[in-house]
Amino acid sequence: MSPATLLALDWGTTNLRAHLLGPQGSVLQRRNAAGGVMAVSDGRFEAALRALCGDWIDQHAVPLIASGMIGSRQGWAEVPYLACPATPAAAAAALRPVPLAGGRVLHIVPGLIVTGPDGQADVMRGEETQLWGAGLADGACCVLPGTHSKWAWMAAGDAVQRFQTYLTGELYAVLVQHSILGRGMQPGTADAAAFADGARLGLAEHAHLSHLLFAARTAGLTGERGPAALPDFLSGLLIGAEVGSACARGAPDVVTLLGEAALMERYATALKLAGRQVLAAPAEATTRGQWRVALAAGLVAAQP
Amino acid sequence: MSPATLLALDWGTTNLRAHLLGPQGSVLQRRNAAGGVMAVSDGRFEAALRALCGDWIDQHAVPLIASGMIGSRQGWAEVPYLACPATPAAAAAALRPVPLAGGRVLHIVPGLIVTGPDGQADVMRGEETQLWGAGLADGACCVLPGTHSKWAWMAAGDAVQRFQTYLTGELYAVLVQHSILGRGMQPGTADAAAFADGARLGLAEHAHLSHLLFAARTAGLTGERGPAALPDFLSGLLIGAEVGSACARGAPDVVTLLGEAALMERYATALKLAGRQVLAAPAEATTRGQWRVALAAGLVAAQP
Repeated sequence: MSPATLLALDWGTTNLRAHLLGPQGSVLQRRNAAGGVMAVSDGRFEAALRALCGDWIDQHAVPLIASGMIGSRQGWAEVPYLACPATPAAAAAALRPVPLAGGRVLHIVPGLIVTGPDGQADVMRGEETQLWGAGLADGACCVLPGTHSKWAWMAAGDAVQRFQTYLTGELYAVLVQHSILGRGMQPGTADAAAFADGARLGLAEHAHLSHLLFAARTAGLTGERGPAALPDFLSGLLIGAEVGSACARGAPDVVTLLGEAALMERYATALKLAGRQVLAAPAEATTRGQWRVALAAGLVAAQP
Repeated sequence: MSPATLLALDWGTTNLRAHLLGPQGSVLQRRNAAGGVMAVSDGRFEAALRALCGDWIDQHAVPLIASGMIGSRQGWAEVPYLACPATPAAAAAALRPVPLAGGRVLHIVPGLIVTGPDGQADVMRGEETQLWGAGLADGACCVLPGTHSKWAWMAAGDAVQRFQTYLTGELYAVLVQHSILGRGMQPGTADAAAFADGARLGLAEHAHLSHLLFAARTAGLTGERGPAALPDFLSGLLIGAEVGSACARGAPDVVTLLGEAALMERYATALKLAGRQVLAAPAEATTRGQWRVALAAGLVAAQP
């Protein structure tokens, strides 16, 4: 096996994903646990880390780096947000060292903060590292779908120029589980046509979202759509409204998607309906980004 | 006491409100119970009705009329929606008679249906009767705030020309109770300045609502707003976005508000920020509307 060079942790709200990296940041081994920040009680983060990869730590005398919510107020150590535009070099200079038992050190990557055109602050933790590993060009726009989806615009020098968060995934979940919209629904059946109908409406009518959502109720009441079609119709309304808003805020002709396959497909459908061309980010964007920050910080070395 | 003329029921999802009306629809007595459609099991509506006002029914040989969700699929008898534009006379012609024990009849007012500019159906049950009792002029626009707030535009002959529903109240409730936005909140303290800030933002940025909601998270994270200010800030964002959308859909310079006082005050603030003049609908709009429909149906007589 190639020699290990870096132990890289993607430590989010729900999951802890660990990668043992080799030369040039290649992935040697990977492990996951449901050991996210919200699952760790009483600040026992070091125990959670050792439970998943204590053997790696003991066997490989390599630096450790972590990105994600582990650097939040609820995480291991709060790392102040870095202001945009933000480069891997700036993140490397702002790594937060956390001493481990035995004299080792974990380096936590800072999240980013930006002020939007609406004058409001926006933040991310973890996605910045994925963006730096996605090989995006100057001027590229990248979407990371999820509970809180992020749209980022890149600038020269791999800088994250600006970004904005949409609550879309969480809105979908709370509306299906806790609102009247969920009452008429029968989940479980994918309905691509219902999704596309919803997405077209969301794109056209994103300026009226609080009204438009009621269409997921009336379509059921009038019998226009069956209970099995309503979840995807609502998903389309919400994702369409997100894409419509982001297009109005300057999404370019080509947009890169980075994330989980099923969700990327939904966003690709909506983006194409909005006349955008869609690219997929390369795999391993997270470990590539972690490697880039570690390299900029001098924790690892590029091989000749 | 004046002679009773009509027993009028405002029978909604949560509450059953009964009024014994006298000459010209004046209110003689009123009673309320938490006996809404969702609280009645196994279709025992007649028992719920007699529990609240069986003595009235026995003592006064007057017609009975009901408006609200009692005419829905989950109610006592489903009354088909009436298409807009819809007048009290059209509703009178479409009353659904429900026989009661002892030979009496309850007349249920139909709700309304309309197709919006987005091509989607919209519906109301109960609000149409309030609109007919609110003394609105041809061309008036009336807002009924609530869990599902309704904006209605009136035409000649007391017709409800068109309307649209906003999920605003329910969005607020599910986001506070079930989303990450609620986590940083400390409810209970009114903060008029935070509400107005939110409303200004919502008005300006209603085309980006799914993004804008995240500001209620970042304002807490950055310490810009304390936990006690966040509920009203979120309320402002949502109500502002609703008013912004409705203004873009043609809300006139003067808007009438009809509903509960505290909620009307919030809407009045947002409407004034949008440059609208605000009127309050007269009290007893519901019973006035029920009286008007009963009159058009010949159930009661106008006195000379």
